[in-house]
Amino acid sequence: MSKPKVFEKPIGVKDYLPHAVSRLRHIEGRVLACMSAWGYEQIMTPTIEYYDTVGVASSTSDQKLFKLLNNRGTTLVLRSDMTSPIARVASSLLKDAEYPLRLSYHSNIFRAIEEEAGREAEFFQTGVELIGDASAEADAEVVALSIASLQAAGVERFKIAVGHVGFLNGLLEETLSGQSEAQEQLKSCLLRRDYVGYREQLRQLQLSTELERGLEGILRLRGGQEICEQALEFSANETAKASIRHLCEVWDVLKAYGVCEHVLIDLTMIGDFSYYTGMTFEGYAADLGFPVASGGRYDNLLSQFGRPAPATGFALKTTRILDLVRSGHGEEKKRVLIGYDTHSREGALLAAARYREQGDVVVTERVEDWDSWAPGAAGVALPLTYKGKSYSAVVPFQSSQIKGGTV
Amino acid sequence: MSKPKVFEKPIGVKDYLPHAVSRLRHIEGRVLACMSAWGYEQIMTPTIEYYDTVGVASSTSDQKLFKLLNNRGTTLVLRSDMTSPIARVASSLLKDAEYPLRLSYHSNIFRAIEEEAGREAEFFQTGVELIGDASAEADAEVVALSIASLQAAGVERFKIAVGHVGFLNGLLEETLSGQSEAQEQLKSCLLRRDYVGYREQLRQLQLSTELERGLEGILRLRGGQEICEQALEFSANETAKASIRHLCEVWDVLKAYGVCEHVLIDLTMIGDFSYYTGMTFEGYAADLGFPVASGGRYDNLLSQFGRPAPATGFALKTTRILDLVRSGHGEEKKRVLIGYDTHSREGALLAAARYREQGDVVVTERVEDWDSWAPGAAGVALPLTYKGKSYSAVVPFQSSQIKGGTV
Repeated sequence: MSKPKVFEKPIGVKDYLPHAVSRLRHIEGRVLACMSAWGYEQIMTPTIEYYDTVGVASSTSDQKLFKLLNNRGTTLVLRSDMTSPIARVASSLLKDAEYPLRLSYHSNIFRAIEEEAGREAEFFQTGVELIGDASAEADAEVVALSIASLQAAGVERFKIAVGHVGFLNGLLEETLSGQSEAQEQLKSCLLRRDYVGYREQLRQLQLSTELERGLEGILRLRGGQEICEQALEFSANETAKASIRHLCEVWDVLKAYGVCEHVLIDLTMIGDFSYYTGMTFEGYAADLGFPVASGGRYDNLLSQFGRPAPATGFALKTTRILDLVRSGHGEEKKRVLIGYDTHSREGALLAAARYREQGDVVVTERVEDWDSWAPGAAGVALPLTYKGKSYSAVVPFQSSQIKGGTV
Repeated sequence: MSKPKVFEKPIGVKDYLPHAVSRLRHIEGRVLACMSAWGYEQIMTPTIEYYDTVGVASSTSDQKLFKLLNNRGTTLVLRSDMTSPIARVASSLLKDAEYPLRLSYHSNIFRAIEEEAGREAEFFQTGVELIGDASAEADAEVVALSIASLQAAGVERFKIAVGHVGFLNGLLEETLSGQSEAQEQLKSCLLRRDYVGYREQLRQLQLSTELERGLEGILRLRGGQEICEQALEFSANETAKASIRHLCEVWDVLKAYGVCEHVLIDLTMIGDFSYYTGMTFEGYAADLGFPVASGGRYDNLLSQFGRPAPATGFALKTTRILDLVRSGHGEEKKRVLIGYDTHSREGALLAAARYREQGDVVVTERVEDWDSWAPGAAGVALPLTYKGKSYSAVVPFQSSQIKGGTV
């Protein structure tokens, strides 16, 4: 195994140069401000967690966790999501805080192995958790807030696909009772959105024509409110029916929010975390094959940390949104270049301080030889590019000039 | 070894609750804005770096590095400073960018073992690097910017102690030539600011009275500009003399910045990173025993990444400043609680959107039973605390009232 070259960084991680940081910070600021306006308060947790607590609860597959040992021999992980750490905080530092808790975060997240597939091993998420509220209002609030957050981030065209893990679980329990392996295989196809594979699996199960047709039919359960009505007829299973009734309520609230144009019901959707217990959703930007937001209800996670409570939330995939949203990185400030020589240094630095107080960006430079100082040459047009940076104003503090001037 | 309890987090790392996050974000925003006004552009680098490149260059002692293996068996580290990753970027992604580079960052940093001493294993730094400028102007610029940054962070009373590694190195080379172990022991005492130990070491060396008195005398080389003059007389060594002349120049520029009231020259100071090659400095807040800022010149680091260049910079110890600065966490926003029932939901959520557009924070809640809804009770005084949160306005959207009202 060869040593990495001196200037290399690990595979799957990224440097962000000033232009990208400026855009990332702009998105971060706007999304967090939006979440704050909805009453969500920001929280930060450590990068490192215990493997046995948050590592296990995160439901990230073991091989995707970055693991390290502390000097006591305990296994630590780099956080692979923010939902589990926040559940830990809700059960410890915030154990006396009244429910519901509305918490937000902007954080980096780590996934090993992903690098193999050209995916990022470290990326940013900006999200919320609403803990202690089991209602359809709460589910609709986080869906509506995910829409407002995507808009705040500058994502223009997107759809939120909403499903419910209870519908599929109920339906499969009804039709494939006891065949847990077959159930898992079908769900795994749906998780990958591999509908060809799903049909293939169905055929291999050699079900009655009626059952096979029924299970194939769920692939068509994608659309507007009418899907809920169709789905209610679809299964006699009580879990499946209760799930659909909950989704109908969520839809009603989303209607009141006036955001249904962004929402579609997709009953083939199951969330990518095993801790989801109810409604799940994913946000897709136009012309992009992967989600830019994902979320759902996880009513059992908090009990793993000793303070049982229903909860729901979502995360924007901020790093992906950064690739998507090319424009908008805040106001451009006026950039001023001040040149000076030793004798005029004090006045020059005082002037720099004044410009900065006014909100300008100022770079100062001591000039050794005025004659060869390009920015001061006669006829230089502004904005001027000097040493790779652009300036809209150049101010020379040249003591000989001052001496020779009208002062 | 017992498993950690479910709600525990690793020793040495911290959760930040909303109030602390709000203050930390306020400091981060103000300091980065200050750095931006001085022409420094923000950069972000990965949390994980190769041990063989940045890990080694960081000059953090091996046992203080958090190490992990990737799935190829290569050793990675969690970054233990930001100077080395930025040197890597200057030599790779930015290799065609013209010098000088002015870069800033706000980042978390990791140090293992520190937890043993009750110190933090993960903490924040906010800093700058000025790469490609060897002048005294550049050193003075980063010292002056560290002062402006501490002021922006809200630190009121502080002193910046400025030294130069060349002075001590030159002096020790002159007086203890060839005795590298003795030199290291003396430097190690000064690094720990253990002046009793320093005197003890000196006695054990059994030097001539004159030499011992001379080396003891540097403990008194702390003060204003006069120290430079005393120091010039102190050593005939050319390295030591050149270092002092450079410090005199830095002092002159700091005078022009008008910040000398915050600066003292301290020739006993050596920076805590072995990559420092010139001027070093540390910022001390009044009544605090540990530095809140540290920086210095590192003219050899960039060559380790294949693009030799002089450089200087500093970092604020942002986590410590957070503990120090208790006040100032931005403006408090107006918080509005909106209650509604199913029939008035649409109007209520529309009103919530309007308040949010105005800049207010709005929490919405569906009310099941108006009679027992405490915030709506007659005579409730504002601001009101409800479910642990404070509200300065409560707006009920009650459909029966609307029906029975004047509409």
